[in-house]
Amino acid sequence: MNNLLLCGETAHALYAAVRDLPIYDYHCHLSPREIYEDLPAADLTSLWLAGDHYKWRLMRQSGIEEKYITGDASPKEKLRAYAKAIEYAAGNPLYLWTKLELAAYFGIEEQLTPENSDEIYDRAAAAIRERSLSPRKLIEMSNVALIATTDDPADSLEWHQKIAADETFPCKVIPSYRPDKMLLCRAADYKDYLARLSTAAGIAITDYSSLIAAAKARLDFFTENGCRVTDLGIPAFPTSIGTAEEAEAAFAKVVAGGEITDREFDAFLSRALIDLSKLYKEHGLLSQLHLAVQRNVNPTLFATVGVDAGGDCIDDPIPATALSKLLAAMEANDGLPYTVLYTLNPSMLDAMVSVAGSFRGVQVGAAWWFMDHTGGIRRVMQSVSEMGQIASFYGMLTDSRSFLSYTRHDYFRRILCTFIGEMVDRGEFAAEAALPLAEKICYRNIRSRLYPEV
Amino acid sequence: MNNLLLCGETAHALYAAVRDLPIYDYHCHLSPREIYEDLPAADLTSLWLAGDHYKWRLMRQSGIEEKYITGDASPKEKLRAYAKAIEYAAGNPLYLWTKLELAAYFGIEEQLTPENSDEIYDRAAAAIRERSLSPRKLIEMSNVALIATTDDPADSLEWHQKIAADETFPCKVIPSYRPDKMLLCRAADYKDYLARLSTAAGIAITDYSSLIAAAKARLDFFTENGCRVTDLGIPAFPTSIGTAEEAEAAFAKVVAGGEITDREFDAFLSRALIDLSKLYKEHGLLSQLHLAVQRNVNPTLFATVGVDAGGDCIDDPIPATALSKLLAAMEANDGLPYTVLYTLNPSMLDAMVSVAGSFRGVQVGAAWWFMDHTGGIRRVMQSVSEMGQIASFYGMLTDSRSFLSYTRHDYFRRILCTFIGEMVDRGEFAAEAALPLAEKICYRNIRSRLYPEV
Amino acid sequence: MNNLLLCGETAHALYAAVRDLPIYDYHCHLSPREIYEDLPAADLTSLWLAGDHYKWRLMRQSGIEEKYITGDASPKEKLRAYAKAIEYAAGNPLYLWTKLELAAYFGIEEQLTPENSDEIYDRAAAAIRERSLSPRKLIEMSNVALIATTDDPADSLEWHQKIAADETFPCKVIPSYRPDKMLLCRAADYKDYLARLSTAAGIAITDYSSLIAAAKARLDFFTENGCRVTDLGIPAFPTSIGTAEEAEAAFAKVVAGGEITDREFDAFLSRALIDLSKLYKEHGLLSQLHLAVQRNVNPTLFATVGVDAGGDCIDDPIPATALSKLLAAMEANDGLPYTVLYTLNPSMLDAMVSVAGSFRGVQVGAAWWFMDHTGGIRRVMQSVSEMGQIASFYGMLTDSRSFLSYTRHDYFRRILCTFIGEMVDRGEFAAEAALPLAEKICYRNIRSRLYPEV
Repeated sequence: MNNLLLCGETAHALYAAVRDLPIYDYHCHLSPREIYEDLPAADLTSLWLAGDHYKWRLMRQSGIEEKYITGDASPKEKLRAYAKAIEYAAGNPLYLWTKLELAAYFGIEEQLTPENSDEIYDRAAAAIRERSLSPRKLIEMSNVALIATTDDPADSLEWHQKIAADETFPCKVIPSYRPDKMLLCRAADYKDYLARLSTAAGIAITDYSSLIAAAKARLDFFTENGCRVTDLGIPAFPTSIGTAEEAEAAFAKVVAGGEITDREFDAFLSRALIDLSKLYKEHGLLSQLHLAVQRNVNPTLFATVGVDAGGDCIDDPIPATALSKLLAAMEANDGLPYTVLYTLNPSMLDAMVSVAGSFRGVQVGAAWWFMDHTGGIRRVMQSVSEMGQIASFYGMLTDSRSFLSYTRHDYFRRILCTFIGEMVDRGEFAAEAALPLAEKICYRNIRSRLYPEV
Repeated sequence: MNNLLLCGETAHALYAAVRDLPIYDYHCHLSPREIYEDLPAADLTSLWLAGDHYKWRLMRQSGIEEKYITGDASPKEKLRAYAKAIEYAAGNPLYLWTKLELAAYFGIEEQLTPENSDEIYDRAAAAIRERSLSPRKLIEMSNVALIATTDDPADSLEWHQKIAADETFPCKVIPSYRPDKMLLCRAADYKDYLARLSTAAGIAITDYSSLIAAAKARLDFFTENGCRVTDLGIPAFPTSIGTAEEAEAAFAKVVAGGEITDREFDAFLSRALIDLSKLYKEHGLLSQLHLAVQRNVNPTLFATVGVDAGGDCIDDPIPATALSKLLAAMEANDGLPYTVLYTLNPSMLDAMVSVAGSFRGVQVGAAWWFMDHTGGIRRVMQSVSEMGQIASFYGMLTDSRSFLSYTRHDYFRRILCTFIGEMVDRGEFAAEAALPLAEKICYRNIRSRLYPEV
Repeated sequence: MNNLLLCGETAHALYAAVRDLPIYDYHCHLSPREIYEDLPAADLTSLWLAGDHYKWRLMRQSGIEEKYITGDASPKEKLRAYAKAIEYAAGNPLYLWTKLELAAYFGIEEQLTPENSDEIYDRAAAAIRERSLSPRKLIEMSNVALIATTDDPADSLEWHQKIAADETFPCKVIPSYRPDKMLLCRAADYKDYLARLSTAAGIAITDYSSLIAAAKARLDFFTENGCRVTDLGIPAFPTSIGTAEEAEAAFAKVVAGGEITDREFDAFLSRALIDLSKLYKEHGLLSQLHLAVQRNVNPTLFATVGVDAGGDCIDDPIPATALSKLLAAMEANDGLPYTVLYTLNPSMLDAMVSVAGSFRGVQVGAAWWFMDHTGGIRRVMQSVSEMGQIASFYGMLTDSRSFLSYTRHDYFRRILCTFIGEMVDRGEFAAEAALPLAEKICYRNIRSRLYPEV
């Protein structure tokens, strides 16, 4: 395992120097409540397979019955079914993540197979008991310095406050401001959402101005509670920029209970993104945009299992012109914050890197979800370095719901060390610059972006 | 040649173990009549260059006059012209196919050059004579267990029946149901086609229902004659899903001799695909969709040489949203058969793999036509393995009109062995799982999909 | 530096054989006036950083203040700022270009760093003095046989004529006909442009016919002055083909001072491209189309620095259908000249190679601008070789505004030698064909296209 994904002497040396550096996980979907409550894990299946739609997809693609995936099979049966799916899944990141996670947290070095899966289940149970594996324990084992969870503006941040009040826990857990629900104004339950947001903000939302006022009030509250980051992950992107009047008119229609057209939604969405971004810039936040995702495309799966079930996939590329128009409108408004763009569709990657490079402070972020594998991670690093400044890259984030996913940082660091190391070995990059560059990407860049004063 | 495309010890060992496994060529364009009649080849040029628009394109790209491509030059002159084109065509798959085909069928190991082309022509003639090279001989030399030809629903399957009746021929030759002409209802000669289909089905096609009834009758006939596979290769894909009423109305207009709009065509096409797919599922067929092709884009070539002349090319990517909508509509209708998606446009590959992965039984197939080269084959394997389950991959098919193209399976198996072998050598995949995985992809997966009872 | 980008014995041997071959730089943005006047360089900063928006972008992406980029910092301060940006810019082509340019022209082999940048500034100043570095000196040091500058049809070609008259300068400097301004008929200053073109051509431009007549007159003048090449670099591409009547009507509206719709512009643009191409074919010119560029997307940058400031980027892919339609219309008109297609968007590369391959004499050209890096250059070579005839490839051009950019040919030749050499070393290409192939791509193909009589 020591050599995994490492190629060449320089890569090995770099990796030895960076493997234990702290992790700044600036975007994930962990539950602050689970971190606060810190309950011990039940067993390997509930810790590892329950809720993991990456694994579910692979199991379905392997022809495994739903009973063993999201159904009522026993924990051991489910683990055995996963072992069957993973045994031949060469090249899938789950194959290596499985190895890394079993080794790092449970001390299990063997390859999981259908034959040994029962035994591994039992050995994991023993490790959970002996090591008292709980959320905080897993976080501390992983040397995590910062966790930025993903939170709705209407959220009370109760659990973040409780964690912050507990001085015994060394890892900083901060909220991210993610206004997806605020922006998806055509959702069936949007009125309910507005009501919750109104209450949280203490502002009656009756029109576009009061919506933005409420958003601002919550943003103030979030930043008072340590928020340094925002995020967006909606399956929509405006292809034209609306005027303030158009946005107001569209939102008035929504408030009045009417339906709006695609064009009206574009006007609302584009203005709201521009107005929010200006607020982000004023607060010095790092703004993240997760682009090109389709959600719940399989109707059977959605009806039987629900959201986050493995029925999401890559969306069409966001037009480069749409992206540059939106950034230009923010820039023209003196409201373009430090921004990280992520895409799920690799066919738009190069164009996105090039558009980003035309705006100060705008960058492309690490490979995400369907791109978070060896090839995807390398492709992003390559594109960013070829057309931009890899030394400004913010590096890895887990984007995960699981406390075991910190091995993705290990996975990333190995690939990074090989990426840089191979350039050094080929004489294309100065040897003495390699380690400083790797450290910047591992945590220095993101730390100084979020905490410039450190 | 033994080392060709093989990299690393594991790759060599794997290849030694899989090179002679049987070939299940589940999609090709061979003529069942030629297989039945089994006439000996005339000479290398007619066997190898006549009708091969891959080679024609390369010759045109090399500046060779049309006279030596599709014109009246002598067979030896044409071979010499091809030798000129291939001599410097580094990286083109034809370069390696040329080597592999000359070696495998004619025992010629030298590189073809303009200097030795006359001699090679003569040596090939001798080999044709001495080895009695004919379609069946070439098929048997290639250890082909199954051939699925491409057939119109109106086809009588006369030649398939004759081959099936001949017990001396060990290779199974089955028809594929390919309803392209049935669906391209805006073609100038569509009325004639409907008349032929009506006759074949014994059903008067007067409206949408009777069209589907005729399609069903022919499908029953095809499956009675061994059909296990369907295919689609039209240069069109619906971007929205029509209602049954819209499809009926559109088809009624066609029957009445009217012209239909793009939207009406989309309605007809989407419903017909959905209705056909439900029938495919009921028959347990494997459904193949060949996507993103433009046909006959060069007007001069089309006017002088006709179809299949080398004037086809890659089309724009099918939107990921269109693809997921169509699959969702099939799924919602309980009519999504086992499906293989192929694309000619690599920029949609990753999105397609990801969309496919959201639906049980839907997969991406091997690199095809303009992607059928070392880089393209690897890219498909990589995308499938990164975002899905490579162990479910159906592997190679020739998609060819030539009896010499079975070396494409050899070419593919070499690349596959290197793909898996490199992962093993790098410690990213268990050594003991490598051979079972390679065998699945070489023929086991497709055999058990087509013949689950075996 | 000798091994830079060279991998394998064959690559080294090939490179030794091709490194000193002449350069035919068939598309660049050098100033013929500067070549004629041949003033010595002032200092490294003005020669190397002033006007170089590639470097400016990297500096901005590194967080460097505008003062040190386009502002009033001193030359030494600016060089130090660039040293800071380049120090960790692993993988960016500027990193290697910087090394190659400092070595080739100034004899400086060290890595530029913020620490040694002042010293390097001084040493470069000494080299400029001692070696009398001027445009012509730099061109001669680089063994350039041909330079094709980029010129507006209204240009007097005064400087080209003066250079041609000077028999002491061994490099041929010819104009390229680039009708961008003639075609961008919706530009605010289009009337002024038409006036200039009218004057230059001696033809009053009152309608579409007289526009084409003026274009033809200038083309005749250009070819009399050595022009062998045309180019197009507009951020627009017609998605449909207009009729002659539609083009005339659209242009009449423009002449009358009216605004035209997108559709009308498409009609004008498509017809004008078709009509110009026919003229190009008659003159035996090589036609170049530079596709998929967005210009000046950053409003702040445009307002403060202007055009060519680093605010350009990749545009959306040109639809493969649009491209094939335009080429088909030219072909149908017997007016498709030898053509080179370049794209800035790699996601359309494969489709473009495949479309080009359907038309005689149409090819894809070398990686350009945001693709002009190791990965991009390889990707283009790979796509061209996989789907076409690499032996017909025209090879490298600088497309640069700087007299130091000839090292890009050296960079390209290294990558080319490794590309071919690796195929030879892997047994995928005949060793004896490698050098002839490399020579064709280095200069023979372009020389015989431009000067078939040589």
